[in-house]
Amino acid sequence: MLPTPLPDAVRAALLAPMVDQHCCGVRRDDTTRSGFEQLIGEGGTPAPPGTTHFDTPAGAAIRRWCAPVLGLEPHASATVYLSRRAELGAAEVNRRLLRGAGVSAFLVDTGLDVPGLLSPAEMGRLGSAAADEIVRLEQVEQDVAEAGLPAADYAGMLRDELAARAARATALKSVAAHRCGLGFDPSRPSRGSVIAAAGRRLADPKSRLDDPVLVRHLLWAAVDVARERGLPLQFHCGLSGWGLSGWGLSGWGLSGGGLSGNGLSGIGVGHLADPALLTGFVRALAPLGVPVVLLHCYPYHRQAAYLAAVFPHVYVDAGPAVAHTAAGSAHVLRELLELAPFHKQMYGSGCHGAAELCFLAALCHRRGLAHVLADRIGEGEWSQADAARIAHMIGSGNARRVYRL
Amino acid sequence: MLPTPLPDAVRAALLAPMVDQHCCGVRRDDTTRSGFEQLIGEGGTPAPPGTTHFDTPAGAAIRRWCAPVLGLEPHASATVYLSRRAELGAAEVNRRLLRGAGVSAFLVDTGLDVPGLLSPAEMGRLGSAAADEIVRLEQVEQDVAEAGLPAADYAGMLRDELAARAARATALKSVAAHRCGLGFDPSRPSRGSVIAAAGRRLADPKSRLDDPVLVRHLLWAAVDVARERGLPLQFHCGLSGWGLSGWGLSGWGLSGGGLSGNGLSGIGVGHLADPALLTGFVRALAPLGVPVVLLHCYPYHRQAAYLAAVFPHVYVDAGPAVAHTAAGSAHVLRELLELAPFHKQMYGSGCHGAAELCFLAALCHRRGLAHVLADRIGEGEWSQADAARIAHMIGSGNARRVYRL
Amino acid sequence: MLPTPLPDAVRAALLAPMVDQHCCGVRRDDTTRSGFEQLIGEGGTPAPPGTTHFDTPAGAAIRRWCAPVLGLEPHASATVYLSRRAELGAAEVNRRLLRGAGVSAFLVDTGLDVPGLLSPAEMGRLGSAAADEIVRLEQVEQDVAEAGLPAADYAGMLRDELAARAARATALKSVAAHRCGLGFDPSRPSRGSVIAAAGRRLADPKSRLDDPVLVRHLLWAAVDVARERGLPLQFHCGLSGWGLSGWGLSGWGLSGGGLSGNGLSGIGVGHLADPALLTGFVRALAPLGVPVVLLHCYPYHRQAAYLAAVFPHVYVDAGPAVAHTAAGSAHVLRELLELAPFHKQMYGSGCHGAAELCFLAALCHRRGLAHVLADRIGEGEWSQADAARIAHMIGSGNARRVYRL
Repeated sequence: MLPTPLPDAVRAALLAPMVDQHCCGVRRDDTTRSGFEQLIGEGGTPAPPGTTHFDTPAGAAIRRWCAPVLGLEPHASATVYLSRRAELGAAEVNRRLLRGAGVSAFLVDTGLDVPGLLSPAEMGRLGSAAADEIVRLEQVEQDVAEAGLPAADYAGMLRDELAARAARATALKSVAAHRCGLGFDPSRPSRGSVIAAAGRRLADPKSRLDDPVLVRHLLWAAVDVARERGLPLQFHCGLSGWGLSGWGLSGWGLSGGGLSGNGLSGIGVGHLADPALLTGFVRALAPLGVPVVLLHCYPYHRQAAYLAAVFPHVYVDAGPAVAHTAAGSAHVLRELLELAPFHKQMYGSGCHGAAELCFLAALCHRRGLAHVLADRIGEGEWSQADAARIAHMIGSGNARRVYRL
Repeated sequence: MLPTPLPDAVRAALLAPMVDQHCCGVRRDDTTRSGFEQLIGEGGTPAPPGTTHFDTPAGAAIRRWCAPVLGLEPHASATVYLSRRAELGAAEVNRRLLRGAGVSAFLVDTGLDVPGLLSPAEMGRLGSAAADEIVRLEQVEQDVAEAGLPAADYAGMLRDELAARAARATALKSVAAHRCGLGFDPSRPSRGSVIAAAGRRLADPKSRLDDPVLVRHLLWAAVDVARERGLPLQFHCGLSGWGLSGWGLSGWGLSGGGLSGNGLSGIGVGHLADPALLTGFVRALAPLGVPVVLLHCYPYHRQAAYLAAVFPHVYVDAGPAVAHTAAGSAHVLRELLELAPFHKQMYGSGCHGAAELCFLAALCHRRGLAHVLADRIGEGEWSQADAARIAHMIGSGNARRVYRL
Repeated sequence: MLPTPLPDAVRAALLAPMVDQHCCGVRRDDTTRSGFEQLIGEGGTPAPPGTTHFDTPAGAAIRRWCAPVLGLEPHASATVYLSRRAELGAAEVNRRLLRGAGVSAFLVDTGLDVPGLLSPAEMGRLGSAAADEIVRLEQVEQDVAEAGLPAADYAGMLRDELAARAARATALKSVAAHRCGLGFDPSRPSRGSVIAAAGRRLADPKSRLDDPVLVRHLLWAAVDVARERGLPLQFHCGLSGWGLSGWGLSGWGLSGGGLSGNGLSGIGVGHLADPALLTGFVRALAPLGVPVVLLHCYPYHRQAAYLAAVFPHVYVDAGPAVAHTAAGSAHVLRELLELAPFHKQMYGSGCHGAAELCFLAALCHRRGLAHVLADRIGEGEWSQADAARIAHMIGSGNARRVYRL
């Protein structure tokens, strides 16, 4: 599985079970070819006529690395792969791939408003791992907005609901990047501005939260809860996952999907997902003791690594970029390691929908890190003991410390 | 020519004729050393006193790779190279280099308002290739603006002129990045706002189009034509070619050139050439069936690859960044391949002025891709058949499909 | 010291003394472990509890490469390293590391308002090198602002003070990136607007300069002086050094430090340190003959390389990113060399505080460039003579020409 010879201690550290510090549930049931293709594509949309999402780095890696897990030869054709997948059935496929990821604990973001995904407990059971919940802030807010309360009660109910949800969670997560971008005013909004904005929001409660005042209010309410309970606050950053909200899983027939609908507004803010934009907010949180975890970040991962280097409370992972860049992921990890302190980088698959992406992220993380460590040892830059320790910290040690697992 | 041993099928796919999906014409006539230096520099400006543009990655590659095409030893000195170039004459040099590019079809952007460039037909004849025209939108608009018509007729004449020009074209191209940046409002401007803006524009018709309302109007008019005729819409993106408009070819004595004049305003928007800024417009085009091709994109090529991965109708190339980064281009292609679907990436030289850049782009594309494919095969990531197919798709297959060649 | 076999001439060029075209002074006196850790971290802040800044790329490189300079085994533990450092004493440590950097001239930025740093003369004496001063514009302005003069005299006194300081300097340096970001209006501000802004500024003279009007005024005043005296104007760019202003050296007990205080406002503008934002100002300077040197730039170094390729008067270095990315720095240099003309790239350590960073920058520059040159020669891209000449130009030749050393 590892691409290069390594000293035993380094090899063992790379192959040891990891903490997947951020993932979403994978689909419980079988799907069509079209549905599967939409799940493995970055955008949740079909491939153009005459083409296939198997002709992507992730698609090629599924044929190469997941096929053997299903009992096929490497590089099996897409047709053979999907036929075998259907033959085994989703439950067995999920069990093989999640277990094959070699993960000891899944931290599962339950904020995808899509039926048919495995719960954290199910992810853990199928993957032979512990499992904990990550609460997605915007999903809590949506529930509150749709509860039919007066604007004056919005802030109080949001606070109570966040506290209740946080009580059984291991982290809180924000997708502010998809709602108003990360360049928001870092200060806590005034009570008056929140009530006014809540009034507008509650007039159309089914709409998605995207008012910057309420996004900031939600974040600061989350910070209060996170402080009380010692929870880290995760931020989705970078160009990824735009398809999740409303149309990303449409291949499963769950939404009208395609290229219309409320999920689309998210894509427009791509360039606003640069974590460098979050600097002011990160700084404001520095004295509060709330760890901030920057998820994914690609192609702005160097900016994220810089923030992790500069701010004692900031952490970083490469998220779903690892599975999606697949054979190219060693280079992404190499760039993240240019500046990220070894005690600040973590592993997270950021997967959702297809168990293949969960498996691939773990495999590519181990293979990519193996390349980097072998180079560093070979050039005499890091000792073998250093390399083993770094692999351990990134794979699980840092996450155990930060999430108190 | 290829830097590394490869299986026969992969080697054959890499060496097969390619479609150059975007280039401009090269100069027909001979030039001075100073003129040649300005052509091969990124900025179209002279090198500082005591230095030479041969001391750049592209300059070193010309001495290494173009010298043998002219019958010289590799690494010939700049003086020897230019002397031999003059001896052979521009026609023979162009013939050798264009033919040496190994291209079966040139799609030639005719929008450079500079005399002395080869026409598409001449590019094809000298390069033993087919040739088609790409119509540059802003050049059509300039013709319309200078025709001396009333503001009320501007939109109609622009529409008619675009339709007429498109009738014999294979694609339309926008340099909006150079005019108002790519962060423009993606919506179609109102009729009233266009008439008002046209009034201002026609009061100074010789000026360059840079009013965002009219840039948007031009784009939407182009979208209408592209839909009718099934043409892709190309966008110049990234940090390149700023010198083209008014001073880039000044080395040939065609303009006052240097660091003053109307071409300069383009450079100021460098950071606005990030294709991520185009996301909203790209999304608006998704339901319309108009392919969008992001050209060049460097150093924002990862952002472009992401858009190509997410949107079914978006395509990408690395353009003139390949020739200009030369020995470093394998790394650029490697990054583009991190996320770009194999059916979405294309080859385009983006060359103009010097046939050397056309030759180098093709050579460096083949060499760079050879490096990546050899690595992927060597690590067992891609099968040999996959690698050959990917080289073919990127080299010509995708372009034949998208441009219906 | 070099990581790979190289032809003799290339090896000699890489090992020849270099010009460190931008550094700050290192601390004269001994420090505690906590103080040392804050100096070697990117942010000048302590590592989180249970972690250490030795677990960073730079920290690992100090254990690997600086330990032998102090007479220890490679990969010595942090405890052993610091114990040996204390045993030798700061003066001997500084002497060994500065001399070990293999530098023939230090250009020392004296604008850090921190006592206990070596002066340029001391840097030169300890490092067996020549030394010259770089005047930091904002420090001159601060002195003027605090002098208690009326607003009407501000501009005149600033001009006089700049001229006086420039008379014994080799370059001027701006940290506008930290004050208002690099996206400022490139035009020279009007006299009236300067007087008005000076009035506000002088009402609170102890505050840091951050008014964009006055930042621009300072830059244009510096341009006037630079023209008269033939001095280059350096710009700090990219994500680095944010800790310098007020809290970066707090580990030495010199300020209240930590995460409050006036230095913090600087961090908020991280994304505004992209040198692409400086394009308009750079263009405005093109006709004036004032060289512009973009320092550090990471992770926007490709943007900087593009500006250096396009504008005859723009130069670039990789600055402290080399020491901080350490084992990863070869890749950063490789990216810079994708587009930067060989006569435009320079070496600068950008170090401050810890002599280790001065030594590491030089070592990693030589090792990283050795990797790139070995690859280029091995692939037949550059001749041995080219490679040697390029190493020489970047290491010292370009700086000697630009700074007239």
